[in-house]
Amino acid sequence: MPANNSDLIKIPVVEIESRLVQVLINHGFSYAKAKTCTEVFVGNSLDGIYSHGVNRFAKFIGYVKDGHIHPNHDAICQHSIGGIEQWDGQSGPGPLNAISSTDRAMELAAKNGIGCVTLANTNHWMRGGTYGWRAARKGFVFIGWSNTIANMPAWGAVDSRLGNNPLVIAVPYQNEAIVLDMAMSQYSYGALEVAQLKNEKLSVPGGYDEHGKLSYDPVAIKKSWRALPIGYWKGAGLSLLLDILATILSGGLSVSEISKDKIESKLSQVFIAIDIRKLGNFKSIASAIDQIINDYQQSVPEKKGKSIRYPGENILKIRAENLEQGIPVYKSTWSEIQKL
Amino acid sequence: MPANNSDLIKIPVVEIESRLVQVLINHGFSYAKAKTCTEVFVGNSLDGIYSHGVNRFAKFIGYVKDGHIHPNHDAICQHSIGGIEQWDGQSGPGPLNAISSTDRAMELAAKNGIGCVTLANTNHWMRGGTYGWRAARKGFVFIGWSNTIANMPAWGAVDSRLGNNPLVIAVPYQNEAIVLDMAMSQYSYGALEVAQLKNEKLSVPGGYDEHGKLSYDPVAIKKSWRALPIGYWKGAGLSLLLDILATILSGGLSVSEISKDKIESKLSQVFIAIDIRKLGNFKSIASAIDQIINDYQQSVPEKKGKSIRYPGENILKIRAENLEQGIPVYKSTWSEIQKL
Repeated sequence: MPANNSDLIKIPVVEIESRLVQVLINHGFSYAKAKTCTEVFVGNSLDGIYSHGVNRFAKFIGYVKDGHIHPNHDAICQHSIGGIEQWDGQSGPGPLNAISSTDRAMELAAKNGIGCVTLANTNHWMRGGTYGWRAARKGFVFIGWSNTIANMPAWGAVDSRLGNNPLVIAVPYQNEAIVLDMAMSQYSYGALEVAQLKNEKLSVPGGYDEHGKLSYDPVAIKKSWRALPIGYWKGAGLSLLLDILATILSGGLSVSEISKDKIESKLSQVFIAIDIRKLGNFKSIASAIDQIINDYQQSVPEKKGKSIRYPGENILKIRAENLEQGIPVYKSTWSEIQKL
Repeated sequence: MPANNSDLIKIPVVEIESRLVQVLINHGFSYAKAKTCTEVFVGNSLDGIYSHGVNRFAKFIGYVKDGHIHPNHDAICQHSIGGIEQWDGQSGPGPLNAISSTDRAMELAAKNGIGCVTLANTNHWMRGGTYGWRAARKGFVFIGWSNTIANMPAWGAVDSRLGNNPLVIAVPYQNEAIVLDMAMSQYSYGALEVAQLKNEKLSVPGGYDEHGKLSYDPVAIKKSWRALPIGYWKGAGLSLLLDILATILSGGLSVSEISKDKIESKLSQVFIAIDIRKLGNFKSIASAIDQIINDYQQSVPEKKGKSIRYPGENILKIRAENLEQGIPVYKSTWSEIQKL
């Protein structure tokens, strides 16, 4: 949730949608592309991922204005080897490239069981979970990740040379999905900002202060620019490997190459889909997942009465609430969008 | 390294090898299977992963004696859908099933670009990195994981219902490999034991004490049985998703089903290989990885003079040292193996 509730207004979905579509068209998007892009931004806010939804739209338009995002460039297939295709995103809009890559990975999976699309020279996909939900709702397992601009130090280092390279894993579940969408840093800089605005400490250490001590203080961490990788050396290692894979599989730019420009564009991404409907029917997949989740939810909570949630579980409730009540947007953000 | 140096002896590789092969033959392994299994145990110790090498051999033989591991059962293919094959490990030796699955994933990748073998009803693969090194040395990207018996609580829970489900990602690098091999818990119980024996505290919090506080004390964590997932809620979520995928893709048992028996057997695993030699030559893969690692190693270290290492980097040195000087084994372990 955004930081300060008094600065928030709730705007009906259709009102936001029509405004975003119009702004995108004004900035050179075709009607169809404007619609799809809007669905991603609005969908992310609907799901409660406000940092990568409507709140980020003005920044996205800024990238269009500055020529980093080409509204009507489509990704093109550069090389195909059966189950893998290597695409060039041609600096098109990140969400559109990611959608077409996800859909293509599913097509390849429908043919081969498993399909992999790699994508070079794309832009920020906003929220990675979008593509996990998309694939899982259509009955596919999804594994995907993106590299980013450098924003996290290697383990034992003070300067940022790793990306927080979000990783998404999704599976179909009860007509919806279980979707893990996690960056390799314990907190995003967006989350640190929210905590700072609320004048709150973090619930677990999120990075280092200027004296090199682990800190719960978002302000201190933002000063040092030393975000903490999840699991210390482990998340740093995972970030490095995800970058290597995205780079070599797509033939695109690495975190260090992206970071030379100080602008987060020309990213490299990987989209893997698996068509589980084609698997051998040794046992029902749906009931296997039910069994795992049922056992998981029977965990004894640390705090009495607290429920143990699976990744993405909360989103269905938030989505229903926002659909009914409107999407919470900062007043300043909304007035900025009105002027675009 | 094992805990107490005075209890260690260094034994030449060939001496260990011939003993392990003999013991395996005595317990019903064919000569060829005994040789391959021995290579895995000795290789893991050579690489410095002592907890999953020779030190674990007696426990492995115990599983054979108790009928959990069937020495000469081979995995069989149950279902094939192009790029994916589902195999049943038939409770054969975990390392042998994992090797054949890795090799088969590479064959599928050589045909389709990407190949995926899933494996139900297998046994502990010992060290997951073994299979990453194997595939990467042959020029393949490798992504693989295993589920385990429940040994880690969900986030916000006190009882263990998640596995620490190790994840392995490997890429070829300079005739060797970069290999990430990480469990979802910050420390394995083996690592906690080593710290306890050395009377040392952990370098970062490894779990909770009996009062529910994060702790650096291996003894306190072993009392509470509350190991910490890497990145708190993130590692717990990743563990859950890896278990769901291993279970549904293989048609095998989940962490909770495995845990009913209190014996870690009938595991589910996934092996994905990608044949990078078949990718489009937009740029040299080897020089792309060099570029990433070079930049990474130029990180400014927190402690002056300390080098920033990539996952697996240290192993080459340890391997060379152990090959020359012999493998460090506990005296008690070696005498136990002599009696098997």
